Amino acid sequence: MSKRVKEILSWYGSDSPGTLASLARLLNHGRLAGTGKLVILPVDQGFEHGPARSFAKNPAGYDPRYHFELAVEAGCNAYAAPLGFLEAGAAEFAGDIPMILKLNNSDSLYGGEDPCPAITGSVGDALRLGCSAIGFTIYPASGARNEMYAQIRELAEEAKAVGLAVVIWSYPRGSGISKDGETAVDVVAYAAQIAAQLGAHLIKVKPPTEHIEQDAARKVYESEKIPIGTLAERVRHVVQSAFNGRRIVIFSGGAAKSKDAVIEEIRGIAEGGGFGSIVGRNSFQRPKNEAIDLLHEIMDIHKNA
Amino acid sequence: MSKRVKEILSWYGSDSPGTLASLARLLNHGRLAGTGKLVILPVDQGFEHGPARSFAKNPAGYDPRYHFELAVEAGCNAYAAPLGFLEAGAAEFAGDIPMILKLNNSDSLYGGEDPCPAITGSVGDALRLGCSAIGFTIYPASGARNEMYAQIRELAEEAKAVGLAVVIWSYPRGSGISKDGETAVDVVAYAAQIAAQLGAHLIKVKPPTEHIEQDAARKVYESEKIPIGTLAERVRHVVQSAFNGRRIVIFSGGAAKSKDAVIEEIRGIAEGGGFGSIVGRNSFQRPKNEAIDLLHEIMDIHKNA
Amino acid sequence: MSKRVKEILSWYGSDSPGTLASLARLLNHGRLAGTGKLVILPVDQGFEHGPARSFAKNPAGYDPRYHFELAVEAGCNAYAAPLGFLEAGAAEFAGDIPMILKLNNSDSLYGGEDPCPAITGSVGDALRLGCSAIGFTIYPASGARNEMYAQIRELAEEAKAVGLAVVIWSYPRGSGISKDGETAVDVVAYAAQIAAQLGAHLIKVKPPTEHIEQDAARKVYESEKIPIGTLAERVRHVVQSAFNGRRIVIFSGGAAKSKDAVIEEIRGIAEGGGFGSIVGRNSFQRPKNEAIDLLHEIMDIHKNA
Amino acid sequence: MSKRVKEILSWYGSDSPGTLASLARLLNHGRLAGTGKLVILPVDQGFEHGPARSFAKNPAGYDPRYHFELAVEAGCNAYAAPLGFLEAGAAEFAGDIPMILKLNNSDSLYGGEDPCPAITGSVGDALRLGCSAIGFTIYPASGARNEMYAQIRELAEEAKAVGLAVVIWSYPRGSGISKDGETAVDVVAYAAQIAAQLGAHLIKVKPPTEHIEQDAARKVYESEKIPIGTLAERVRHVVQSAFNGRRIVIFSGGAAKSKDAVIEEIRGIAEGGGFGSIVGRNSFQRPKNEAIDLLHEIMDIHKNA
Amino acid sequence: MSKRVKEILSWYGSDSPGTLASLARLLNHGRLAGTGKLVILPVDQGFEHGPARSFAKNPAGYDPRYHFELAVEAGCNAYAAPLGFLEAGAAEFAGDIPMILKLNNSDSLYGGEDPCPAITGSVGDALRLGCSAIGFTIYPASGARNEMYAQIRELAEEAKAVGLAVVIWSYPRGSGISKDGETAVDVVAYAAQIAAQLGAHLIKVKPPTEHIEQDAARKVYESEKIPIGTLAERVRHVVQSAFNGRRIVIFSGGAAKSKDAVIEEIRGIAEGGGFGSIVGRNSFQRPKNEAIDLLHEIMDIHKNA
Repeated sequence: MSKRVKEILSWYGSDSPGTLASLARLLNHGRLAGTGKLVILPVDQGFEHGPARSFAKNPAGYDPRYHFELAVEAGCNAYAAPLGFLEAGAAEFAGDIPMILKLNNSDSLYGGEDPCPAITGSVGDALRLGCSAIGFTIYPASGARNEMYAQIRELAEEAKAVGLAVVIWSYPRGSGISKDGETAVDVVAYAAQIAAQLGAHLIKVKPPTEHIEQDAARKVYESEKIPIGTLAERVRHVVQSAFNGRRIVIFSGGAAKSKDAVIEEIRGIAEGGGFGSIVGRNSFQRPKNEAIDLLHEIMDIHKNA
Repeated sequence: MSKRVKEILSWYGSDSPGTLASLARLLNHGRLAGTGKLVILPVDQGFEHGPARSFAKNPAGYDPRYHFELAVEAGCNAYAAPLGFLEAGAAEFAGDIPMILKLNNSDSLYGGEDPCPAITGSVGDALRLGCSAIGFTIYPASGARNEMYAQIRELAEEAKAVGLAVVIWSYPRGSGISKDGETAVDVVAYAAQIAAQLGAHLIKVKPPTEHIEQDAARKVYESEKIPIGTLAERVRHVVQSAFNGRRIVIFSGGAAKSKDAVIEEIRGIAEGGGFGSIVGRNSFQRPKNEAIDLLHEIMDIHKNA
Repeated sequence: MSKRVKEILSWYGSDSPGTLASLARLLNHGRLAGTGKLVILPVDQGFEHGPARSFAKNPAGYDPRYHFELAVEAGCNAYAAPLGFLEAGAAEFAGDIPMILKLNNSDSLYGGEDPCPAITGSVGDALRLGCSAIGFTIYPASGARNEMYAQIRELAEEAKAVGLAVVIWSYPRGSGISKDGETAVDVVAYAAQIAAQLGAHLIKVKPPTEHIEQDAARKVYESEKIPIGTLAERVRHVVQSAFNGRRIVIFSGGAAKSKDAVIEEIRGIAEGGGFGSIVGRNSFQRPKNEAIDLLHEIMDIHKNA
Repeated sequence: MSKRVKEILSWYGSDSPGTLASLARLLNHGRLAGTGKLVILPVDQGFEHGPARSFAKNPAGYDPRYHFELAVEAGCNAYAAPLGFLEAGAAEFAGDIPMILKLNNSDSLYGGEDPCPAITGSVGDALRLGCSAIGFTIYPASGARNEMYAQIRELAEEAKAVGLAVVIWSYPRGSGISKDGETAVDVVAYAAQIAAQLGAHLIKVKPPTEHIEQDAARKVYESEKIPIGTLAERVRHVVQSAFNGRRIVIFSGGAAKSKDAVIEEIRGIAEGGGFGSIVGRNSFQRPKNEAIDLLHEIMDIHKNA
Repeated sequence: MSKRVKEILSWYGSDSPGTLASLARLLNHGRLAGTGKLVILPVDQGFEHGPARSFAKNPAGYDPRYHFELAVEAGCNAYAAPLGFLEAGAAEFAGDIPMILKLNNSDSLYGGEDPCPAITGSVGDALRLGCSAIGFTIYPASGARNEMYAQIRELAEEAKAVGLAVVIWSYPRGSGISKDGETAVDVVAYAAQIAAQLGAHLIKVKPPTEHIEQDAARKVYESEKIPIGTLAERVRHVVQSAFNGRRIVIFSGGAAKSKDAVIEEIRGIAEGGGFGSIVGRNSFQRPKNEAIDLLHEIMDIHKNA
C-alpha cells in the first residue's frame, strides 16, 4: 500500500480492521489508486430529479448497467447509487468496482422548506450487495436535521460494526438559511465539521462561494482574516474545518455545465487541497467517450495537485 | 422454463433463488405462462371504496371465494388482495394461483390531501398464507411519501430475505402535484423510477396521459424531443424509465368502462412494451363469463404484442 | 360439535387449530351454544363513560364480579371487558365463561373530533388471564384511523399466532363523516368490510339506519336498488358486506332504552341474518333478574331466527 | 398475616405470588402493618416544584437520606420518590422500608395545557434498587392522556411479570376539564375507575370536592341521588368507583396547610372508607418531630376508622 | 485512594463497582487527582457553533489531537467531546486521559425556540472508544424537555449497566423561561435538582445570577431568606440543591472572556463549594501555554478552596 494511503488510514485510529480495509478499497481502486485522491461516480439523480431529467440527454443512462460500465471504464474509485440501481448490477459487476449504497434519498415530486430524505436502504442491503461503504445525506439547516443526524448516527454505528465505511453528503438546506447560504463558505465549512463530528470517514460537500451566511461567523472571518477570496482558499478552509485535513473531503460537481467550467472548478478544488471530486450529471449526461475523457482530465488534475 | 422468462429473471441478479422462484411462479402461471407478460386480478376495492360501490353491481363479488375462482378460471398470473380477502380463500384455493398480499390499504371514509395508507398486513402473513409476493402502494407527491418509502424499504428487505417478490403500486397523489398530474407522463415515468429504485421487482402504474406536470421536466421532454404523442409512446417511455425495461412494469385498468375503451387502452399498453395489465373493477364488476372473455382478450393482446 | 358451528369454522380456513378452538369456545358456550348465534356481555362503560354513569343505576355493577356472574347466569357466549375488570375476576371465574380482553379504550374526560383509543392491554395479558379472544375498537372516519388499523394488524397477527380469536368493534366516528353518518347504512356496511379485511373473526357494528352518508355510495345504492328500507334489510346488507356472510357479524344494543325498544331492534337484527347481539348497558343497568330475562328473550329471538 | 391483609390480597387473584408478596410488604410494614390501611411518604416535589420551593422551609430535606429516615422513623408503610432520590439512599436504607419508584415526573419550568410527564425511571431500575412497587402518574383529561395510558400499560405488564406492585397517581388535569374539575367528585371517581381498569393495585387520588364537572354525570348523580354532601360521602363514592372497594385507594394530602386542616381532612377520608393517605409536603416541610407527630396522628385516625 | 474520594464515592451507593471505578478514574486523574475537585476540558463548540467561530482564533484547535494534548498537558481530570472528535484521537491517546463522550449535540444552522439536541453517539460508542463516562445535555424549560429526559433516562440506565458514569449538562433554555431566566439562581438550582433526580453522577450547570425567574420560587427565597447576594452564596445554594452536596456539581466557564474575569468567577465558585469547572472556549481559544497557565490557576483555586 502506498505511503499516502497508509497515512490517511492512520487518521482513523478508532476504526476496526474491517472498516479500514473498506476505506483502503476505495483509496486503492481505479486510476487514482494509491494517490490519496478520489473521483467517485454518483448516480442518484433518477430518484432525486426523475428519469427524463436525468437520462434523456444520454439515454444509455436509463440502463443501470451503463453507470457501472462508466465507472469501471473511467477508472473511478467507486460508484455510488440508491438501492435499485445497485441491485440491478451488483451481481454482474461483482468485484469490478467498490460500491457505496446511498441509504437515503429525496424525490422532487413534493417540496417543503425543511427537507428530510426517506430512508431507502439498510446496512444489511449494503452487505448483501457487496458494498464497501454506506452513503447518507444530511441537510443541516433543515428543521428535520436532528432526525437525519440521529438516523446516520445509528446507521454509522451499525456500518462500522460490520466493517463498512461511512460517507456523508452534507448539504445545508432548509428554513434555517437562505438559498445563497447553502453554498456560503461558513456554512459549507460548518457542514464539513458536522459530518466529521457525526463520525463520517468521507465527506462530500459543495464547492463553497465567497458568501458568508451567519453574522456570528462573519465577525470571526473578518477579525481572524480567514482568506476566502479564491475557490482554492475556500476549499482549504473547508478541508481544515474537517479536523484539520484529517478527514477525507471531496467536492460535488453540481449542475451539468460546460467542460471548461467543470475543469476550472476542479483546479480550484485540487489547489485548495480537496481530496477529490464526485461527478454525477457532468459525466453520465455526456456521451460515454466524452465523459471518460472529462473524468480522466479531472483525475489528472487531482493526481498532480 | 421459457427463454423469455429466463431472460427476465436475469435482470434480478441481486436476488436469492427463493425470490427468483417466486417471480418465476408469477411469470409461469395461467394463460400467459412463459410469455413474459402478466395479467393480474387485484381486488382491494372493498377496502378502498367500500363494499357496495365495489360489489353491488355483481354481487357474487361480495364473497371472497369468487375472486379466487375468477382469477383461476380466467387464467390470470396472480391474484392480489388485502389480508382479509386472502385469509378467506387461501386454504381452499391453496396451490391454485399465485397470491400477492397487499400490505397497505386506504379506505375512503376519511380524506386528507396528503394520503398515506395504513399498514394492514405483514411479511409473516404473506408467508403463512402461501403468497408469492407482497404488494405495497406508495403515493409519491404526498407529504407522507417518505413514511411510505421507509415502510416498503423495510418490508421489501424482509420479503427478499424470505424469498418473496415485491410488487409496488406507484400512484403519485397528494399536495405536491395537481389532479391532472397524477397521470402526467413525466410523473408516471418518475413514479416507475422511484419504485424501481426502492427495489421493486414488479411495478404497477397508471396509463400515462400526454400532460406534463413539472416545468423542470417539460424542458427536457421538449429539448430532447421525447415522443409522448400516443399511449404506446408514453408507455414505452415509462418502461424505459424503469431501468431501461429491466424491471417488469404493468398498467392498471382504472375505473370501470366500456369493453371497447378497455381494449383500446390495452392495445396501446401492449404496443408500447408494457409487461401486462392489472384489471380490477373492469373484470370483477362484470358477470363472470363476460369478465373472463374480456380478460382473455386482454391476455391475447399482450401475448401477441 | 353442531353442523352449524362446523360450517362457521370452515370459513376461517387460514387459522390455526388453536384459533379455531378459541372461536369454537365462543360459539359453544351458554344458552346459544351450537346455534351459530352469540349474545355477548360487554362492560367497558366504566372506562368509557365513567363509573357513576355506568353503575349508579344498578350499584351491584360497581363490583367487577357482578358482570361475570351476570354473564354466566344469563348463559352468554362470552364476557368482554378491559384489563382491570377481567383481572378482578378471571381467577375466581376461571373456566366459567369465555373472556374477550378489550385491548383499547377511550375515556370521556377529553374529547377531540378525531378520536383514537389508548392501548390498555396486550395479547400477553389475554393469555395470562385465560381469554379466548382479544377485542379492539377501530374508528373508521377518524383522522387517526390508520394508527388504529396498524395497531390491530399487529395485535391480530400476534393473537392468531398464539391461538386467540380476534374481535373488532368497528365504529365509524370522526371528522371524515357527520354524526348521522356514524350509523348510516353505507358507512356501517363499509365498517364491517374494513374489519373483515383487517382479519377480524368476529365483527361488532351498530344497527344501521336508512341514512346514506357518502354521495359516491348513494349512486350505487340507487342504481343497484339495494333494499335498505327496513332494519332487517339493512342488517342483511351489512352481513353481506362482511364477505357475503362468511364472517360473524353481531350488533350492539346501544344506549339504555325500554325493553320493548330493545326487543324490536333485536327482531330486526335476527330477521336480517345478524349473528347475534352484544348488549351492555341494556343488561347490566337493569336489576339482575330483569337483565337475565331480557337477555334470555334476546337469545330466544336469535335462536329462533 | 392478618385476616384483613389476606382479604385484601384475595382481591388480586390475577397476580403472581411475587406481586402479591410485594403488595403484602407494603401492607405489612410500619405502624399500620396488618391493618389494611397505609400511610405513604412521597417526595417528588424536588422534581415537580424545584428544590427551594420544596426543601427551603425545612432544609434537612435537601438531603435525600432525610426522607428515608423520616419514613422509617414515622413508621410509614412505604417511601415513594423519583430515581435520583432513591438511588441516593437505597443502599444505606436497604431493607428498612418498602420503596416505590416513581417512573414518570414533570417539572414546572415549562407549562402547557395538556401535560404529560417524562419517563424518568424503569422497571429495571426498580428491581436493582430493591423496590416493592412502581409508581406512575396519569393525567386523565389531558390531550396526552392516551400516551400515558399506553406507557403505564406497558410498564405495568412488565412490573407484574417481575413481581412488583403497581401504584397509579390518577390526577385529572388538562384542556378536557376546568381547574375546579380537577377535584370534582365525578372526575375523581372517574379517575379512580380509570386507574383500576388500567390494572393498578393501589390508586392515589385527590380528596374530592362537591363540584360536579360533567353534565352527563350530573344527571346521574341527581337522578340516582348519590350522596356527595360530605367528604366522607364523596370518599365512599370514590372507593366504590374503584371496583366497589376491591382496589386500594389512598388520598393525597395536597398543599401544605395547618395541622388542624390536615387532620380534619384525614377524618373525612377515614370515615369514608379510604385506605389511607399519602402525605408529602405536609410532613417533610415540617420539623421532623412535628412531622412524625402529625403522621402518627394520621395513622391513628386511619387505624381506628 | 484519598479519603475525600472515598467519601464522594460513598454517596453513590446504588452504583456498581464498574461505575464507581469510572467515577474514581475521573476524580483520580490529573493535577486535581484525589482532591475531590475536577477541571474538565469540553470541546463541542465545533459542532455547536461551527469550526471558524470555535477554532479560527487558535487554529491549532482545528486538529482534534490538539485538545487531547491540551487536556493531558494541563492535567485536566477528563476530556469531553462529541463522537467525531473522540474517534479522531482515542487510539493515539488511549490511557492518557479519561474521556467523556457527549451523546447529544445541537448545531446553530437552525434555531427554534424549544431546542432539542440530536442524538449523536451511543453507549456502545463510549465503550469502544474507552470512555469513562457519557455526557448528555438537557434543556429544561424547552417544550421538548421530556424527550430529552426520556432519552437520558434510557441512556443512563444503559451506561450504568456497563460501568460508565453519567454526566448531565443541565442548561435551562426554551419557551418556558426568559433569556435572563436561563441563569437565574432559582432556575439553575432547579436544573441541578432535575439532573440529580434523573440519576446523574456529575452535573454541569452555568454560574447563577441573582435574578429570580419564577414567582412561586421568589416567595420562598424571600420568606426563607435564602442568601443569594454573592456568587459564592448562589453556588452554595445550587450545590445544596443537588442532594445537599451529595452529587458532584461543576460550573461552566461560559463565553470567552478576560483572564481576570474568568479567575474572579472561579473564586466565587470555589468559595461556594463548587466541585470544579468545565472550561472550553476560555482554554482552547487561547494559545496553549496561556491556556495551560489559566487552567493551572483555576485548578489551584479549586484545590485550595
